[in-house]
Amino acid sequence: MALVVQKYGGSSVENAERIKKVAERIVRTRKEGHDVVVVVSAMGDTTDELTDLAEQISPKPPLREMDMLLTAGERISNALVAMAIHSLGAEARSFTGSQAGMLTTSRHGDARITEVNPYRLREALDEGHIVLVAGFQGMSADSKDVTTLGRGGSDTTAVALAAALNADVCEIYSDVDGVYTADPRIVSKASLLETVTYEEMLELAASGAKVLHLRAVEYARRYGVPLRVRSSYNDKPGTLVSGSIEEIPLENPIITGVAHDRSEGKITVTGVPDTPGMAAKIFRTIADAEINIDMVLQNISNVSGKTDITFSLPRSHGDTAVSVLEGAKSEIGFAELIYDNDIGKVSLVGAGMRNHPGVTAKFCEALSAAGINIEIMNTSEIRISVICRSDQLDDAVTALHEAFELGADDDAVVAAGTGR
Amino acid sequence: MALVVQKYGGSSVENAERIKKVAERIVRTRKEGHDVVVVVSAMGDTTDELTDLAEQISPKPPLREMDMLLTAGERISNALVAMAIHSLGAEARSFTGSQAGMLTTSRHGDARITEVNPYRLREALDEGHIVLVAGFQGMSADSKDVTTLGRGGSDTTAVALAAALNADVCEIYSDVDGVYTADPRIVSKASLLETVTYEEMLELAASGAKVLHLRAVEYARRYGVPLRVRSSYNDKPGTLVSGSIEEIPLENPIITGVAHDRSEGKITVTGVPDTPGMAAKIFRTIADAEINIDMVLQNISNVSGKTDITFSLPRSHGDTAVSVLEGAKSEIGFAELIYDNDIGKVSLVGAGMRNHPGVTAKFCEALSAAGINIEIMNTSEIRISVICRSDQLDDAVTALHEAFELGADDDAVVAAGTGR
Repeated sequence: MALVVQKYGGSSVENAERIKKVAERIVRTRKEGHDVVVVVSAMGDTTDELTDLAEQISPKPPLREMDMLLTAGERISNALVAMAIHSLGAEARSFTGSQAGMLTTSRHGDARITEVNPYRLREALDEGHIVLVAGFQGMSADSKDVTTLGRGGSDTTAVALAAALNADVCEIYSDVDGVYTADPRIVSKASLLETVTYEEMLELAASGAKVLHLRAVEYARRYGVPLRVRSSYNDKPGTLVSGSIEEIPLENPIITGVAHDRSEGKITVTGVPDTPGMAAKIFRTIADAEINIDMVLQNISNVSGKTDITFSLPRSHGDTAVSVLEGAKSEIGFAELIYDNDIGKVSLVGAGMRNHPGVTAKFCEALSAAGINIEIMNTSEIRISVICRSDQLDDAVTALHEAFELGADDDAVVAAGTGR
Repeated sequence: MALVVQKYGGSSVENAERIKKVAERIVRTRKEGHDVVVVVSAMGDTTDELTDLAEQISPKPPLREMDMLLTAGERISNALVAMAIHSLGAEARSFTGSQAGMLTTSRHGDARITEVNPYRLREALDEGHIVLVAGFQGMSADSKDVTTLGRGGSDTTAVALAAALNADVCEIYSDVDGVYTADPRIVSKASLLETVTYEEMLELAASGAKVLHLRAVEYARRYGVPLRVRSSYNDKPGTLVSGSIEEIPLENPIITGVAHDRSEGKITVTGVPDTPGMAAKIFRTIADAEINIDMVLQNISNVSGKTDITFSLPRSHGDTAVSVLEGAKSEIGFAELIYDNDIGKVSLVGAGMRNHPGVTAKFCEALSAAGINIEIMNTSEIRISVICRSDQLDDAVTALHEAFELGADDDAVVAAGTGR
């Protein structure tokens, strides 16, 4: 008998029909003899609807109250799944984040988990119940107020519970079959990965793969929680995320997959005096506005002693970044800001590339042969990323996927959307 | 500076526009220098929508999970009102029932308040915040599970908080101007009562007046909390519920008002052996099915030694009552059950009738003159109730209202609906 944590995304519980299907799977897992803890996201569009309501009332609602509001969504979906389980003849009990002992920092809207005290869940499991926990939420250890965990919160709830309960596996259900070598909506012959290491999954998630949230993968790696990414629409085993690149057998493929990201924009600061500390000033200005930058390119100084600095950042923060930089224009002394939204990022990830020279060369050749110009490049030990024009992104993904022979024999089954 | 508890019903917060209006009133009360604690019901139809969702999933959902589900409604409305207050420049903090220290029995769906520990509310008030509390909900003192208080729950939450915080007044806001001498939708000249005692309000609420819930009035009487029933659509003072009939000045009117109730049905058990214990057997059978009966009529035994017993009960329990009685037919030995839904109940309430003989006679004369037949009659010290045909109920209300000269000079303003 194992302890299984299952997390179901919003699309898996978007209506009564889907909730019943999810309940059947949960009950089946219980009947196989396992203890089951389930984390459910809010139904389909609930979070968006509640956010809309808040915006109708206040342009900038207080974050504490946003958390009180949004956590109602998971409360609703969890109670409904508990009812569906009950109607199948099994016993279930739903718990809020605070009832589940999910203690967090008090940063509303983006709280971090500081401690998990799941004694009420243990009790309910010992009494033979299926346990349901509202994802995405917790309670501030200081103020006892309701908090939310921000993006990827429900995945993180599931992983944190799996770690605290010493679960055998944490299954993340959505509407995709697992982790693919590339997005099957772009590359029809993308193949499903049976296993992937934490490090590779981290690089894929950080590079735009939406199937798992970076934060949940980081948490899973830290506590050694095996993750299984599966579809709630079928019984395929999905992808197992576990193990370290250090343990990868030599015969494993060199390259794991291609990820892409359409969410970034690019800012070029031209005519920056090429003196020490100028880049630091620019990035400090951006950091003070709580904006993370991703990739950076600094051109070689030209004859006039001026240089250009280009960096990418989340598109949603583009306007803010431009406005804080304009505000610091006289201090930094640059000539011009060029903001460019029409970019895409493509990344190649693979633990094997550490030991195989020539991957970067092949990468560049493949893009060049496809007529794709590289605007910024950035690498880690197991990843190469470049920025190109957004309308060339699909071609870039396809070219790399082919060049590194990642394709399967059959077409992948493409689902309608992705879970949150 | 006073401490004011305000309760807003579902229709007062049914959309963003109404929520902003409610927030303006709350902030105005705060700016007048008062401490303000606000209890808000779920928005408009939220509770019905959540109940529908539950019914789609399970024909008989577990009550614990229904409570987890339904309490999301008040959580949402409270957070939104807090946001609206915030956008007017005032500080507000919303609390769930359990955060507000509302401890209850563990009877899900119909829990009773056992204790109120509002220390977090006190703290927030001391820090100058407007305090919002989700109505209708609490936490089981035993199991620490989320509970709901059942019908009239939000009114009861407000009164219980007012008692625990020793508030100066508990204002109950809905879409009606206060307590009338009769339903203004039936009697256009119904007059608004400036004051009414707890006892009279109890009789009116028990007789079908929907403006206040019986349970909240009982709670208010026990703890001496002055209630003010007002409209959230205007600034009229409404009706003050306080004081005892013992304190009523002699010059006060004899009669307070006329109430009516369309929610009852009537069962006649015919051919019951007229031996001791037969009525007890019938009412025990009904009570064991957890059904409350209201009015009872036992006919005089006829020559055959058989009698008929008639009683009224909530129409929603009619089918159950008939079926449990049919099941006990051989034991009781009756001839036939006649179930009749087409009845109405009209009641006259007034503290003064204790000391004024002749009220009952005048009551019967008025109905008789209007051609209305009395089917069952029942009285208390300060109330007379009768059952008549449902299609004669409006006429009965009008006849009594006129006979006892309860009318105002002007027509009452009739609102579109009633709050919950």
